[in-house]
Amino acid sequence: MKKPPFRIAIAGLGTVGGGVVKALTARATELSGRAGRELKVTGMSARDPQKARGFELAGWTADPLELARSDADVVVELVGGEEGIARTLVSLALKNGKHVVTANKALLARHGAELAALAEDNGVTLKFEAAAAGGIPIVKSLREGLIAYGVDAVRGILNGTCNYILTEMENSGRSFAEVLKEAQALGFAEADPALDVGGGDTAHKLALLSSLAFGTRPDLDCIAVEGIDHITPDDIAYAREFGFRIKLLGVTRRVGDGIEQKVHPSMVRQGSPLAHVNGAQNGVMVDAGAAGSFFFSGRGAGEEPTASAVIADIVGAASESASPVFGRPAASLTRLVPADGKAAISPWYLRFEVLDVPGVLALIAGHLAEAGVSIESMIQRGRDPGEPVAIVMITHETAQADVERALKAIAASDKVRSRPCMIPMEAA
Amino acid sequence: MKKPPFRIAIAGLGTVGGGVVKALTARATELSGRAGRELKVTGMSARDPQKARGFELAGWTADPLELARSDADVVVELVGGEEGIARTLVSLALKNGKHVVTANKALLARHGAELAALAEDNGVTLKFEAAAAGGIPIVKSLREGLIAYGVDAVRGILNGTCNYILTEMENSGRSFAEVLKEAQALGFAEADPALDVGGGDTAHKLALLSSLAFGTRPDLDCIAVEGIDHITPDDIAYAREFGFRIKLLGVTRRVGDGIEQKVHPSMVRQGSPLAHVNGAQNGVMVDAGAAGSFFFSGRGAGEEPTASAVIADIVGAASESASPVFGRPAASLTRLVPADGKAAISPWYLRFEVLDVPGVLALIAGHLAEAGVSIESMIQRGRDPGEPVAIVMITHETAQADVERALKAIAASDKVRSRPCMIPMEAA
Repeated sequence: MKKPPFRIAIAGLGTVGGGVVKALTARATELSGRAGRELKVTGMSARDPQKARGFELAGWTADPLELARSDADVVVELVGGEEGIARTLVSLALKNGKHVVTANKALLARHGAELAALAEDNGVTLKFEAAAAGGIPIVKSLREGLIAYGVDAVRGILNGTCNYILTEMENSGRSFAEVLKEAQALGFAEADPALDVGGGDTAHKLALLSSLAFGTRPDLDCIAVEGIDHITPDDIAYAREFGFRIKLLGVTRRVGDGIEQKVHPSMVRQGSPLAHVNGAQNGVMVDAGAAGSFFFSGRGAGEEPTASAVIADIVGAASESASPVFGRPAASLTRLVPADGKAAISPWYLRFEVLDVPGVLALIAGHLAEAGVSIESMIQRGRDPGEPVAIVMITHETAQADVERALKAIAASDKVRSRPCMIPMEAA
Repeated sequence: MKKPPFRIAIAGLGTVGGGVVKALTARATELSGRAGRELKVTGMSARDPQKARGFELAGWTADPLELARSDADVVVELVGGEEGIARTLVSLALKNGKHVVTANKALLARHGAELAALAEDNGVTLKFEAAAAGGIPIVKSLREGLIAYGVDAVRGILNGTCNYILTEMENSGRSFAEVLKEAQALGFAEADPALDVGGGDTAHKLALLSSLAFGTRPDLDCIAVEGIDHITPDDIAYAREFGFRIKLLGVTRRVGDGIEQKVHPSMVRQGSPLAHVNGAQNGVMVDAGAAGSFFFSGRGAGEEPTASAVIADIVGAASESASPVFGRPAASLTRLVPADGKAAISPWYLRFEVLDVPGVLALIAGHLAEAGVSIESMIQRGRDPGEPVAIVMITHETAQADVERALKAIAASDKVRSRPCMIPMEAA
């Protein structure tokens, strides 16, 4: 081993940062062997130097920016947040000729193209395996693996909290609100769950996968986002009856000359590998052109899976020459041309809660027919008189805009209670 | 793009070689962008220069060794075979300072460590993504991705022909022989199917994954290999009744201080992702220590999936600095210490074909008890008098040696027809 030690500075010593330090220590010989040089943590920064962490602090500084000015070869940014200290630290480290490894999806989804250019200009690399799907090596697979025939679509279960909640709702028949509350008590969901259950976290990750797949600049603004809070146990039970399961998917795919990016609850066929991703697991399906479809699954969050991805990037930075951040030179990343999402066709699951009065089915059928939406199958079951009744349908392939038009008209009737539910059936 | 073109010489222009040339041509701009330099095919060699291939020959030579002496930067070896021209070509190319990309599992399973050392000595890289699981980026994922916590086990469905046959047997209830014949007629199985259905091809791939996972020299001789030709539709039906499916798995895992490598039909729990790998698909499950289990699936053979893996390696060779072939310096690859496979415990599926005469169950139960094998569940169904009867059992966790001892004693009885069938239940 003739190369000098590879000096690592870590900003942020929370769960993931602590996990990185511990694994680098415990597996020092093995990982140094793989990197072809000694891996040495020479700098650390976090909020509280006093906190018990189970490892010794080395090269401590209260100011993370000091790490970007140190003699480190790589700065590992685990502070988080799309602006503020994380952004400043990453920019400064790159400008100072240091490699950067980060798990910060929000930062890259917003400023990825600009930071990629900065990395290239300074001859260093910016790696982010941990920013999407945790331990699953999906960033590497898209950037370096599935490139020969181009990518047509990426569909991912990218948020473990949402998948845990949907799985628990399915297993127990309990409501979204109940399961969320339990997940919070168990520490599987944040006190403020909006970023997870609202789909925002999935959108951050999707923006990065989209960029890697299509050679476009990450573009968070071109993602239509819908969360899971309106999904009911009934929807899940009906889905099962039709041979589907409901998953929160991030989907990015070529449609015409554009790219459609969206995050929404989806009906996934029970035969699809995505349907078997349970609990807090993540799963990603990549349609890699003529090479076919490839599926990846595993733990997408938590100390060890995330630290695993960070460490793979550290070893990569230590052993490889600098490679383009999003798989191609930053200057050649194209601006993402959004496809017209409303024009995208698929079959749809529709659920209406209606009053059990004469004419209500005629009303629904009439508005659907008027918008050109045709029905493939339908379920309606009797309930107690006076109770609202659910009418559930699967449509033939229809443009989203047409379905929305029909639903708007239907929702206006006083025979229809609550907002009708519409969920696309995914091809995956 | 300031780097000079990356010159590619391809030996072997069959299905895969032709696919590589076609994809490199069709996607030249995109792939050159990802490589950071122009990718240029400057040499080709194959048996028949006259054959219609759908692309023009460039830098043709009848002698593949000429390619190793040409000005190529990388030699792509798609000739095949563990000795002969493939071995000579790869050695010579490495000695002459050329990177090598190969899909040749047999060559690397046998001579991998020696060739890795040769690559390192000459400062070049030897890449083989296409040699295991085709288009699935499992080589990259093991070598560079799932390294932080070490690997405890790799379990793979690595042969599409076997998986196709088992899937068809399950779907149609037909025998192994019938389905094999059909697969041969359809071109899904070779005229001489021994290497596929006997498990040898899976063993080649397993030897490579084992080396990547554990940092050991590939060691084909330490793999216990059993094929699928003795599996009956009844076995598959019973498996389903117990909640399992039968798959040909390659398994490599740490057992004590050693590594157990084996290829055999296995009972895979229906909840496992491996159970959902159907038809000619491949699937690999990696237990990556504290990071958890990760699953990969997709097409493992055929023109485009294999060419996809070859092209990823070519682009990698063009853009990266030379990295250790098996993830760590060749000199540090340890000799594989085989675990005592016979000592490995698991539950077992056992099927006996017996004469419907008094005392036969007592005989079987007696010998099992004597060997310390205890039964978890059993199925016996009536058949016509005089017809042989199947007795099917699942055991508790038992060492292979104990089960084999009992079966040997049982098989000696003239009340037992044909060799009893034993299949381990996998933990995956």
